[in-house]
Amino acid sequence: MLNKPGAPAAPGIVCVGLGPGDPELLSVRADRLVRQARHVAFFRKRGRPGKARQAVAGLLASGVVEHAMEYPVTTELPVDSPAYVQQLAQFYDHWCERLAQLARTEQLVVLCEGDPFLYGSFMHLYTRLQARGGVALQVVPGIPGMVGCWHASGIPITWGDDVLVVLPGTLSEDALVARMQGADAVVVMKVGRNLPRIRHALARCGRLDAAWLVQNASTAAQQVRPLAAVPEGEVPYFSIVLVHGQGRRPESPE
Amino acid sequence: MLNKPGAPAAPGIVCVGLGPGDPELLSVRADRLVRQARHVAFFRKRGRPGKARQAVAGLLASGVVEHAMEYPVTTELPVDSPAYVQQLAQFYDHWCERLAQLARTEQLVVLCEGDPFLYGSFMHLYTRLQARGGVALQVVPGIPGMVGCWHASGIPITWGDDVLVVLPGTLSEDALVARMQGADAVVVMKVGRNLPRIRHALARCGRLDAAWLVQNASTAAQQVRPLAAVPEGEVPYFSIVLVHGQGRRPESPE
Repeated sequence: MLNKPGAPAAPGIVCVGLGPGDPELLSVRADRLVRQARHVAFFRKRGRPGKARQAVAGLLASGVVEHAMEYPVTTELPVDSPAYVQQLAQFYDHWCERLAQLARTEQLVVLCEGDPFLYGSFMHLYTRLQARGGVALQVVPGIPGMVGCWHASGIPITWGDDVLVVLPGTLSEDALVARMQGADAVVVMKVGRNLPRIRHALARCGRLDAAWLVQNASTAAQQVRPLAAVPEGEVPYFSIVLVHGQGRRPESPE
Repeated sequence: MLNKPGAPAAPGIVCVGLGPGDPELLSVRADRLVRQARHVAFFRKRGRPGKARQAVAGLLASGVVEHAMEYPVTTELPVDSPAYVQQLAQFYDHWCERLAQLARTEQLVVLCEGDPFLYGSFMHLYTRLQARGGVALQVVPGIPGMVGCWHASGIPITWGDDVLVVLPGTLSEDALVARMQGADAVVVMKVGRNLPRIRHALARCGRLDAAWLVQNASTAAQQVRPLAAVPEGEVPYFSIVLVHGQGRRPESPE
């Protein structure tokens, strides 16, 4: 199923993790699959080019057929509202069937930022395609966006016995504080409009001064700032907040 | 510093993350750096081939000079004993200076499993080399071993607002329980002889039946088992225990 170099692409669906953004951080396997692809599919917000599609701009073959899967709704409705749930469920159901039909005769490469199994939208298609059956299905792991972010900061994230906690910024302030207090290293995903709450939670844990805000890691637009120095105001949804662990390490004698 | 295709390698030290084990899961950049390398260095336990070295067996050029950095001690001494700390500190000091000397005229590629900044031994050289100065230093991120493990399980690790906690298996049982209780998805690293304690901690949280043990993810020796079905006894240090998150997802109507 996973094309060997030079071999023809077998029909089916292959989701490839694209990593944090730099095309050179795709895996060797993902790079080959994307370059050979005759059909690619990717998620995007309506009216946007799509981050996944942008990341592979230099890799796609000419004549590739593109399937843009446009979310019917993103942040306009609360994620727990019945309207949101219904619209998203219909959207995934629709694309599950459409991709499965295409994949009867073609190899379809689904492009996903970061790692597809870590908060990735593809998971909603994955479980539906598994339940549906009748289509060969593979997923190629990628370097998660958060890994690109701690590399952008130039500082290792965990040492020795450090505990790492990965939190969605969508949690309540109290929930953020409770989880941060049991952690040595902290990653907060899905920052965007949640930044003020994340900032308060870090301050309550005494960790605001150790926090960093990272945007567009590994790309030309990369930005790394101490969070305390970031002015109030909205930052992109895909920004990540980091607090590095300070765990055990064999120090050299003074 | 990071060689362009076809360009000569600039002197300095480049640490490359190798990912979970499959050579096709190296990044495009790491793959090129490893194939072009004239000098490679890697950690290994005395008398062992070294997992990092094994992972790139098919990639190294003939005539490459290999620098095996053999730990003076691994699990023979408690990690908090003065003897352990002193021996490790001297070991890292020694290799810091030796690699820095080599890197004056050569590009030296340091091979690291997984991602170098997530519990990686290279971090101990990295901070020393930064403090020493005088050497160009770069790190290429990799797919962490835990990412390879959740892909081996075939199940996404986090959905919606799931909290992911990454724990070293070296923690006390009470510490493991406390962190697991605040988590939706759990990854336990450094399993080995700590497995009985990890198992008890999961049982106390009511999560033993949802846990998986993954070994040698992404390689021919990959093994994925429900933890409850794994017999008592030691497993490799680099095994990983997983509990997948079950968070929010837009379900299709019944």
